[in-house]
Amino acid sequence: GDIEAGKTKSATCAACHGSNGISNVPVYPNLQGQHEAYLVSALNAYKAGNRQGGLSAVMVPQATSLSDQDIEDLAAYYSSLK
Amino acid sequence: GDIEAGKTKSATCAACHGSNGISNVPVYPNLQGQHEAYLVSALNAYKAGNRQGGLSAVMVPQATSLSDQDIEDLAAYYSSLK
Repeated sequence: GDIEAGKTKSATCAACHGSNGISNVPVYPNLQGQHEAYLVSALNAYKAGNRQGGLSAVMVPQATSLSDQDIEDLAAYYSSLK
Repeated sequence: GDIEAGKTKSATCAACHGSNGISNVPVYPNLQGQHEAYLVSALNAYKAGNRQGGLSAVMVPQATSLSDQDIEDLAAYYSSLK
């Protein structure tokens, strides 16, 4: 994915996941330095409806609004954060 | 949770998530320094069957074998790793 495009797209995500991928709400996962392939797989799991219950109610609409390219760009961006 | 008990329990987890919570397989998430409450919520999501598809097939039996105390100890342990 494209890190710069991911950074732009991450404006929405930052509300919960923090501006540098470290969230200040302990039930929202930190994303900083997470594996790119895992982030793609997790976002696709939300998008495909393979994650229900709990906070997935927040993530499913977010993921559903993302294109495959958005998902790759966001994954590249967050995995690049140190 | 109890960090020492979590460390002992994590022997199985280390196979995929790495001995210090950094996995060497990019589709397995890093757990080092992840939020304790998020780890508890994710493990319970697998245990409750709220995560399907993809690699959840690996995690569901793992989570199912864990007690609530195990889950709390593992979450405390992995969130304590720097």
